[in-house]
Amino acid sequence: MATLKDVAAKVGVSITTVSRVLNNRGSISQETKDKVFKVMKEMNYFPNEMARSLSNKNSHLIGLIVPYIDHTFFGVLTAAIEEACYKLGYKLFLCTSGGHSDREKELFSMLQANNVAGVLVCSRVVESSAYKESAIPLVSIERTIDDIPSISCDNYKGGVLAAQELIASGCEHLLLIGNRIVSEHLPAYLRYKGFRDECQRTGKAYSEHYIDSEDIFGKNLDKNVKDIIKRYPLTDGIFATSDVLAAHLFNSLGNSQEFPKRYKLVGFDGLDISEYCGISTIAQPIRQMGELAVDVLIKRINESLVAERYILPVSLIRRKTSCPQTSNKIK
Amino acid sequence: MATLKDVAAKVGVSITTVSRVLNNRGSISQETKDKVFKVMKEMNYFPNEMARSLSNKNSHLIGLIVPYIDHTFFGVLTAAIEEACYKLGYKLFLCTSGGHSDREKELFSMLQANNVAGVLVCSRVVESSAYKESAIPLVSIERTIDDIPSISCDNYKGGVLAAQELIASGCEHLLLIGNRIVSEHLPAYLRYKGFRDECQRTGKAYSEHYIDSEDIFGKNLDKNVKDIIKRYPLTDGIFATSDVLAAHLFNSLGNSQEFPKRYKLVGFDGLDISEYCGISTIAQPIRQMGELAVDVLIKRINESLVAERYILPVSLIRRKTSCPQTSNKIK
Repeated sequence: MATLKDVAAKVGVSITTVSRVLNNRGSISQETKDKVFKVMKEMNYFPNEMARSLSNKNSHLIGLIVPYIDHTFFGVLTAAIEEACYKLGYKLFLCTSGGHSDREKELFSMLQANNVAGVLVCSRVVESSAYKESAIPLVSIERTIDDIPSISCDNYKGGVLAAQELIASGCEHLLLIGNRIVSEHLPAYLRYKGFRDECQRTGKAYSEHYIDSEDIFGKNLDKNVKDIIKRYPLTDGIFATSDVLAAHLFNSLGNSQEFPKRYKLVGFDGLDISEYCGISTIAQPIRQMGELAVDVLIKRINESLVAERYILPVSLIRRKTSCPQTSNKIK
Repeated sequence: MATLKDVAAKVGVSITTVSRVLNNRGSISQETKDKVFKVMKEMNYFPNEMARSLSNKNSHLIGLIVPYIDHTFFGVLTAAIEEACYKLGYKLFLCTSGGHSDREKELFSMLQANNVAGVLVCSRVVESSAYKESAIPLVSIERTIDDIPSISCDNYKGGVLAAQELIASGCEHLLLIGNRIVSEHLPAYLRYKGFRDECQRTGKAYSEHYIDSEDIFGKNLDKNVKDIIKRYPLTDGIFATSDVLAAHLFNSLGNSQEFPKRYKLVGFDGLDISEYCGISTIAQPIRQMGELAVDVLIKRINESLVAERYILPVSLIRRKTSCPQTSNKIK
C-alpha cells in the first residue's frame, strides 16, 4: 500500500504539506489540496484512521455488546444501530457475549482498550456496578443502570394491551408463557406485570408458566409445550412474551388448525416471524430504539445533557391468532 | 483512566520495565511481572490495543461486509464468524452495505484505513475487479472472485434435492419462485439450474417465476402471490429459493390449510423460520460456512496455502409441507 511519503514524492511536496492537507491545518492552496487528494486516490492511499484516532480525542468508534446476533430482535436492533452510526460518521465495533457474564465483562474491557468513544450495551447480564464505575460514555438498552441513560419500550403497556386483546377476543382463561426473569428490576418484568394487572382488573382467570431463562430461542419449548398446556387445560388465550416463543407455540400446537379456533395467541416484539406465521403481536419500535441509542450515546460523547430513561411506545398488530370482532368463545 | 506512568509509579519500577512486561521483551523477573499485572488490574489500566496494533504487523482485527444484518441468514453467519474470531483472538469489525455497490466500496476502503488484518465479504454486489486489485487478505462468501478464496454451499445439489422431494411427494407441475439473479456466474444460480435439470431429467413440467432482486425480504411477494399462482394454475409443487420467500408464500397462500394438501413446498437455507412454519427446506451449513471463512482468512493472513473454492454440503430437512411417504396427488 502507498505511504504518505510516496504521495508527497508524486505530488512534489513535503510530507508535512500532505499531512497538513489531511488534517486541514495551516494555509495550503486549493490547487495543492486538489493535487494531493487526486494522487492519494490514484495511488490507493488511505490515511491510517487508527493512527489518527490516537491523536484525536474522539475515535469515532462505537462499541456494541449484544448477547446474540442471530436472534432477530438483536439483528434488527443492530442493523438500525449500524445504519445510524454510519450516517453520523461513526463506525461500529460489534461484540456478542452469548449471554455470559464473564465474556460481557471481558468485551467491555476490550472495547475500552480499543479506544472506542462510547459503548452501547444491550440486555446486559453483568451486574450494574461493573458499568457504573466506568468513565466511558455508555447507554444501556433493555436494562436500567443507575446514572446511565437507558432505553426500553413501554413493557407495562405492552402487557396490558396483550391481555386486552385476548379478553376482547373472548378468552376466559389466560395463560402467560415467558422466560423466567430473575429480577423484578428488569424492564421486561413490567411486561408480565401489565398482563397480570389487566387480568386482575377485569376479573379473568390467569396462569403463568416460565421456561428456562437460558432458553431464549425457545428450543426446549417444542418438546414440552403439550405438557405445559395439559397443566392448564382450560386455557383459551395465550400471551407469549416474545415472538420467538409465540412462533414455537404456534408450530407445536398445530398452526392454523388450532389458532384462533381453540386458542387465541398474542406475541411480543413485532418481528418478521410473527408476520410469516400470522400471529398477533405487541410491536416494539426496535429500529427507533436503535437510532435513539446512537443519538443519546453521541450526545454523551459530546458531553451534552441527556435524559436518564427513554421509554418508547408499543403497538398492537392484529393478525389471524386473535379476533375481537367475532368474539366467539370456544371451549 | 490510569496511564502506563501511573502503573510504573505504583509498582515502583520504570515505564520501560512496565512496557517490557506488556510486550514480553527483555528479562524481567516473574515477581515483577506478577506485580505489574496485579497493579494494572487494580488501577483498571488497559494497554491501548490500537496503539499496539500499529507497531505490530497483525492488528488482529477482521472486517466483515454483509448486505444486511437483520436478515436471518446473515445474522446466523455473522454470529458464527464473530464466535470463531473471538476463539482465535481476533476482533470483528462489522459493516453492512444495504446491498449498495457504492457503500460496499466505501466500506472496503474504510476497513483498510482502519488497519484490519483481513476482510470477509459476503454476497458482494461490487464487481470482482475492485477486490482483485487489493493487497489485503480477503475471503468471499456466496460469490466467486478470481484468485480469491470463496466459500459457498453446494447450490446445484440443493436444487436437485428440492426437485426430488417435490416429485417424490407426488407433484406433477413444479414452480420455482426465486429472486431475479443477474449473473449466471453467481453460485446461487446453480440452485436454479439443479432444480431445472432434475425436472427435465424426470420429464416433469416446470415453470419459473422471478421476483425483483432488490426484494430480498420478499415484502412485495405477499401482495402478488395470488396473481403469480393464477399464472401457473396447475402448480402443485413449489420450490422457493429462500426460506424467507417460502415463509411469505406459506403465509399468503393459507398456511396449513393449503399446505401440503393443495401445494407441496420446499424452501432453501435452513433458517429457524422454516422450522416455526413447519416448512421443508434445503439446509445450508451456515455456521460451518462462517467458521470456515474465518479459518481460511486467518490462513491467508498468515500466508499459508488455501484452496480457491470451498463448497459445503447441503441437506434436506423434511417437515409438514412435503410428504413423500403418502404420495397422494391432489389436483
